[in-house]
Amino acid sequence: MRKGNVLIAQSGGPTPVINNSLCGLIEQARKEGSISKIYGAKFGIQGVLAQNLVDLGSKDPTLIEKLKQTPGAALGSCRRRITSDEYSQILKVFEIHNIRHFFYIGGNDSMDTANKVAELASEAGYDLRVLGIPKTIDNDLEYTDHSPGYGSAARYYAISIMEVGIDVKSLPIPVSIFETMGRNSGWLAASTMLAKRDEIDAPHLIYVPEKPFVIEQFLEDVNRIYKRLGWVVVAVSEGLKDEDGKPISISRKEANIDDFGHGLPGDVSSLLADIVSERLELRARSEKPGLCARTSIAHVSEVDRGEAYMLGKTAVQRAVDGKSGYMLTLNREKSSEYRCSIGTIELNKVANEEKFLPDNFIDKEANGITSSFRKYARPLIGSPLPKYAQLAKILPFSS
Amino acid sequence: MRKGNVLIAQSGGPTPVINNSLCGLIEQARKEGSISKIYGAKFGIQGVLAQNLVDLGSKDPTLIEKLKQTPGAALGSCRRRITSDEYSQILKVFEIHNIRHFFYIGGNDSMDTANKVAELASEAGYDLRVLGIPKTIDNDLEYTDHSPGYGSAARYYAISIMEVGIDVKSLPIPVSIFETMGRNSGWLAASTMLAKRDEIDAPHLIYVPEKPFVIEQFLEDVNRIYKRLGWVVVAVSEGLKDEDGKPISISRKEANIDDFGHGLPGDVSSLLADIVSERLELRARSEKPGLCARTSIAHVSEVDRGEAYMLGKTAVQRAVDGKSGYMLTLNREKSSEYRCSIGTIELNKVANEEKFLPDNFIDKEANGITSSFRKYARPLIGSPLPKYAQLAKILPFSS
Repeated sequence: MRKGNVLIAQSGGPTPVINNSLCGLIEQARKEGSISKIYGAKFGIQGVLAQNLVDLGSKDPTLIEKLKQTPGAALGSCRRRITSDEYSQILKVFEIHNIRHFFYIGGNDSMDTANKVAELASEAGYDLRVLGIPKTIDNDLEYTDHSPGYGSAARYYAISIMEVGIDVKSLPIPVSIFETMGRNSGWLAASTMLAKRDEIDAPHLIYVPEKPFVIEQFLEDVNRIYKRLGWVVVAVSEGLKDEDGKPISISRKEANIDDFGHGLPGDVSSLLADIVSERLELRARSEKPGLCARTSIAHVSEVDRGEAYMLGKTAVQRAVDGKSGYMLTLNREKSSEYRCSIGTIELNKVANEEKFLPDNFIDKEANGITSSFRKYARPLIGSPLPKYAQLAKILPFSS
Repeated sequence: MRKGNVLIAQSGGPTPVINNSLCGLIEQARKEGSISKIYGAKFGIQGVLAQNLVDLGSKDPTLIEKLKQTPGAALGSCRRRITSDEYSQILKVFEIHNIRHFFYIGGNDSMDTANKVAELASEAGYDLRVLGIPKTIDNDLEYTDHSPGYGSAARYYAISIMEVGIDVKSLPIPVSIFETMGRNSGWLAASTMLAKRDEIDAPHLIYVPEKPFVIEQFLEDVNRIYKRLGWVVVAVSEGLKDEDGKPISISRKEANIDDFGHGLPGDVSSLLADIVSERLELRARSEKPGLCARTSIAHVSEVDRGEAYMLGKTAVQRAVDGKSGYMLTLNREKSSEYRCSIGTIELNKVANEEKFLPDNFIDKEANGITSSFRKYARPLIGSPLPKYAQLAKILPFSS
């Protein structure tokens, strides 16, 4: 194999562990004799086009190590659809800098881009290995048991809604609508169920985009639980849709639509809190941690962190072995202890596909998550959730 | 002094360290020979009226110790104005249970209630010590350097906006409006400035309720920073008011008005993000961590935790010494190292007063916070804020 350089780029929404994959890539690339320079592209594919590169190989190893505790995308990221003219421009940049390994850390849109780069290089007879490293808090990539980033965001939501629940119960407020990320899939909203040790614990209701959201049914659900407990915590996905598939709340203002045609969803919680206070005449508030859920280093799952790092290291090893045109996957082993091995899937298969919550994870009433989901998700969030002091069974509040 | 029982209640919005004061009270009361039983009232003064008491003295010490890591109000809390008939009812309950020490952990409304209870007992010749223990993340209590709960919420906001800033800069989004709590005062919004190590760091703009919020000026501010940096993070207090003193965004729905006439403010961030995307044609999103800010145990300031605990312990010692009719205060000493001693202030003075951000903490343009505030607030948030890896100076994003 020809001695050459490495180019790494990050794409799409960051996760709290995306820089662990970057760290694994850099640390492994430094060990490989066949690799000369290690470049990073600033702001994803955008930085490739602009030849906006940073020499990662020359950085202090302690700085690289610190990436494990750094949120955001340390190289900068982007959401940008590449035109066909730009694809050939990318290849030119690769030639100029003798790039022979291209690692793209991203979600489904990014795997599509990586796939096209790989195809173009192959057509042009340009010797290039392209591997994708999965990353998305949304957990919506197919062919992998789960995606790095998901476990940490799930941990964030489980702990946060548990803590919010304790506050709401103790005041009581009495209704809090807690909004999670997740435009099309309910993996993140579902993760809040991990906070429940008991039927009385928050969240009492969970709504996901996989099932139509019916306002009247929602109000009935909230009212029923309020009457029984005196307080209600509801988890809602930002991407909730009505029976016609129309988002409950979405900003379609021109400025909020990206290159992929995605609008900026959200503030569903605010809308629903208003509806509850109006219709049920109950004091209702909303929490929307937003970006905090994908940036909180204090809530990172050590399992997630370790997997993100290992995927980075392994990608370099596989590329050096000649593997190209694949995204790395996490394959859960059939063992009593949780364990994953690293596999691969063709980029063209995973690109532009989306994984949704399967039906057996959503309860029949479409307002909660089943215990099968708990089995799936529990190992991903790492160490046990905190246990708080309970002085007395706090009964339903009555005034 | 007559041997008698203790009653403890918690009131108003919880803080992440309110149960540390409860823990200090219980642990110290157990040591006092003149104290027989230690009762807690469930749901604040509400539980006193209903004789809804829990025997705290009989609880396992390890459970009491665990209160230090427990969010919410472990006894339950309330926001409720007491009628004059109810005040005499409270005194009857005290007599029935031989309550001789009443400790009320709360904010200004609660100090008013405690004061009336103390006055009524004195008029009736009923031997009772009443002490208030300050608690409010809002930091709006007068006569104390700061209030327990504030340091932890401030730490939460500083770390969270720092992390959100790193995410926003790396994507870039480009505008994020980050909403803090604080209905009337800007102490919480101001705390976000602690995240800034550099002029380029988030937050770039901070708006507090002490100064009129002018939409046109805000848009000009956001646009100016966007043009210079390519991304903008704005911290806004939920209680922002316009030039007529009218809240920018408040739910006045009947269900959202409490006993004290307070409406439920908020979702200012959502409103302002909409205005930015509409008027400046910039993709804008909002983060509103809401209750997460006063419940996140991972972000508790150890300084704050220690002070909350000490105030509980000290309150019992002072009451046993015969002190009554006071709220305990934290008095910052004039020393090079940060240190506070515990003082007292008459309940009737502190009740119903509110402390606002002084003018020298707010910059002249009313869109930022001065370095004098940093000196004041830095010691309260405890250990140093995290430092994240920076691979390269990320320049303003251009497409």
